[in-house]
Amino acid sequence: MAVLSVNPSTGEIRPLDVEETTPAQVDEVCALAARAAADLAARPLTWRSEMLRSMASELETDGPQLVTVADQETALGRPRLEGELRRTCFQLRFFADVVADGMFLAASIDHAQDSPMGPLPDLRRVKTPLGVVGVFGSSNFPFAFSVPGGDTASALAAGCSVVVKAHPAHPATSAATFAALARGADLCGAPAGTVNLIFGLAAGTALVESPHVGAVGFTGSVSAGRALWQLANARPNPIPFYGELGAANPLVVTVGAARQRAEEIGKGFAGSMTLGAGQFCTKPGLLFVPTGGDGDSLVHALVGALGGLGGFTMLSEGIAEHFWSGVESIRSVSSVRPLVDGTPNDGTGASARLFEVGADDFVAGEATALREECFGPAALVVRYATNDELLRAILCAEKSLTFSVFAATDDPDAAWLVELGASRSGRVIADGYPTGVGVSWSMQHGGPWPATTASGSTSVGAASIERWLRPVTYQSMPDELLPDILREANPTGVPRRVDGAFSL
Amino acid sequence: MAVLSVNPSTGEIRPLDVEETTPAQVDEVCALAARAAADLAARPLTWRSEMLRSMASELETDGPQLVTVADQETALGRPRLEGELRRTCFQLRFFADVVADGMFLAASIDHAQDSPMGPLPDLRRVKTPLGVVGVFGSSNFPFAFSVPGGDTASALAAGCSVVVKAHPAHPATSAATFAALARGADLCGAPAGTVNLIFGLAAGTALVESPHVGAVGFTGSVSAGRALWQLANARPNPIPFYGELGAANPLVVTVGAARQRAEEIGKGFAGSMTLGAGQFCTKPGLLFVPTGGDGDSLVHALVGALGGLGGFTMLSEGIAEHFWSGVESIRSVSSVRPLVDGTPNDGTGASARLFEVGADDFVAGEATALREECFGPAALVVRYATNDELLRAILCAEKSLTFSVFAATDDPDAAWLVELGASRSGRVIADGYPTGVGVSWSMQHGGPWPATTASGSTSVGAASIERWLRPVTYQSMPDELLPDILREANPTGVPRRVDGAFSL
Repeated sequence: MAVLSVNPSTGEIRPLDVEETTPAQVDEVCALAARAAADLAARPLTWRSEMLRSMASELETDGPQLVTVADQETALGRPRLEGELRRTCFQLRFFADVVADGMFLAASIDHAQDSPMGPLPDLRRVKTPLGVVGVFGSSNFPFAFSVPGGDTASALAAGCSVVVKAHPAHPATSAATFAALARGADLCGAPAGTVNLIFGLAAGTALVESPHVGAVGFTGSVSAGRALWQLANARPNPIPFYGELGAANPLVVTVGAARQRAEEIGKGFAGSMTLGAGQFCTKPGLLFVPTGGDGDSLVHALVGALGGLGGFTMLSEGIAEHFWSGVESIRSVSSVRPLVDGTPNDGTGASARLFEVGADDFVAGEATALREECFGPAALVVRYATNDELLRAILCAEKSLTFSVFAATDDPDAAWLVELGASRSGRVIADGYPTGVGVSWSMQHGGPWPATTASGSTSVGAASIERWLRPVTYQSMPDELLPDILREANPTGVPRRVDGAFSL
Repeated sequence: MAVLSVNPSTGEIRPLDVEETTPAQVDEVCALAARAAADLAARPLTWRSEMLRSMASELETDGPQLVTVADQETALGRPRLEGELRRTCFQLRFFADVVADGMFLAASIDHAQDSPMGPLPDLRRVKTPLGVVGVFGSSNFPFAFSVPGGDTASALAAGCSVVVKAHPAHPATSAATFAALARGADLCGAPAGTVNLIFGLAAGTALVESPHVGAVGFTGSVSAGRALWQLANARPNPIPFYGELGAANPLVVTVGAARQRAEEIGKGFAGSMTLGAGQFCTKPGLLFVPTGGDGDSLVHALVGALGGLGGFTMLSEGIAEHFWSGVESIRSVSSVRPLVDGTPNDGTGASARLFEVGADDFVAGEATALREECFGPAALVVRYATNDELLRAILCAEKSLTFSVFAATDDPDAAWLVELGASRSGRVIADGYPTGVGVSWSMQHGGPWPATTASGSTSVGAASIERWLRPVTYQSMPDELLPDILREANPTGVPRRVDGAFSL
């Protein structure tokens, strides 16, 4: 079956010059990737960095054409896609730096010693790549969280080979970005099978089940992510599955902040919840606002700002349908009041939706539909009269990727809200919006279930490389049989912990 | 139902002055532990270290009595148990050092900056404790891998509270060691519920299912570990489950090593496979020996050494029964030859068992029973004629905790075997036996499935603390709302990465 590319703006369907990958073909691809992984793991860190930089350059070479293809498949617009491609190239080069830094290898040496347990042998520990990493890119970032995105970059940085399952909403973009990555790898003399691309639902299942695959990275919906997570766990040898799923991302406005900056926050929230047509996993979906005049002013400003926005084109008809059914679930809760609502749009069209509910009604059993992510330009305002009401409502919301707190200067409610947010999310934001996830050393993109399937991991930033590694200790090993980084002379220059003391 | 303590040497059964914990009681215990965890997480690292040292001191105070109780319940003998208690106290103090070191927190600060993605806000990342940790201790180490063992020590070091489910093979030892830990905590003013002890199978299930529990550590059998792992994954909010299960732990002797040191290796292997009656998860269960005269000499020495050993008392009748059924599975494979065998012992009695099979027969389908761990003093010798046969046989064995390679000086087979071992285990040992797992910075005790449920983790050594933590990033946070370690002035003194550069 030919792979189809759909233009969400025009509805035009174009068959690509590629077939869906059969499970038998997936097995061949993964076997080739496994041979590549064994080769890659043995190459020096400097080579690995060079390959990542080469891939970034090739993406830049194809930049204008890649943006055109992606815009046709996603309707995200050239400026946004140009920025996303810059971010994607930056990310590849950032991981080249992470590789060169080398501290992700956590190299540690304990020379033979006496201890209260008796004599201990020479022990040397380092992290080793997991082999072949399967990657499921997301629909909403056709570059930065798709074929050339963070999972691919971090897995290659870890020394793994990668098999990407193309997202059905942008197969032509997937093929075009893959071609640039593959060229970048070839230019550095990477082994065949370093990066690989497969198409189709059945191919994705086969990828998670392949005995050659050592770990999976996934960005996407809760339903698809959980199904694949269960598949990974049901293997004869289960493998790590890093699913970055959705979240409702609460944003709390204290009484003090509402008094100080009602209009500013209302307008800012409108911008954040509709950025990219609300198709961000960090979209703020729950806005906790105090009852009373200041809160009313905030909501008024928010409603006004949303009213001034035009319509959006969603990434695909399926995503638009899912959005409308989410909106309908919210609307159908009897205690919910519509603030910005109307008749649904057709096809891939959408416009902003806003609803309001009292904190006690949010807590009530009937309202579980209100707590889930609604992917798209919709949000729910939860009005609270007391801190007790606010606390109960927050504890009812699902744990999430982010948690934002808007507070006044010297606000007595700031500290407990920040502490609560840290216990319920992966990123706590003071006076800011959760959309926008920069690539950096200190970024965390991942939170407690159901935001991610593995709460200890991140899918953005330097630490995302840790997902693709496993520690190995070498005991009493002759120097010449050790990996370079564990040899006494340490030809890599990467910092190590030696006899308990870390030194640079 | 009263908890029963059984003496495996005499068969005497003694009811303890404690009842099995009901699921409702488990819920209360876990709720208390959750309140303790919130308190503990906020205490300074120096206090945490002090509590761990205090616990070690209290265990030492009770030392002679603890050893007596443990010997009555395990028949492991006073010298072994005295050594194990020393190790346990050393381990608590070691984690006090790990806490003081603080690098496990992975603190990282990126000040606000410009980037190709546009301006980035101030981002500060640190690891935060998961809350309540459930611990399932093992039967075979009543101190070091049980109530006061590595999971408890590392979880407390991470800032978590702990609920231990006592192992039914040593409930009195569990209660006695728990009393010392609780006293150590009290002396430091730890909150009620810092450490907790529950009894009974139903209590264990309730522990894994408790909404208050954030993670579980388990050391024990493959069957129990997998059942609890599935339970943890089936929760409405799945939690990390770190199961350290069994392994067959291959030990390979090259042609060169057999030529050089047949007798020495044969004798050494006999000691390692029968240490603690073979009741170690690192017991070498598979011995790959070349065919021919040198290999024959090695096997001859091994058989001789085993013949010179007396009988053993296993930890419990259940473990003895399981051992004999494992032996029967091996014996019943038609291609297997008995080398040391005889009539099974009664009750908790056991003696060493050794079998031999050709590499090709080991690979054959019928022989899957030969690849699993047989917990107790049994091992299987696999004879290989060529390196191809050896490779095929190793690839058929299950992945494991350890992989040992005995090679000659400048042995042409050393390098590929070490590399293969690193791809199939968590610890590769040159010319040594896998039994004996020292507590140190560079130890790795954990390997690919089925050896552990989470291949990226270790249950021994400094890195075992990482299992009980989750990263959180604070964005644009006012200094006074940050955890101490992320404040600009860093009152903790713990090293951090700042703007990408790590400094001490």
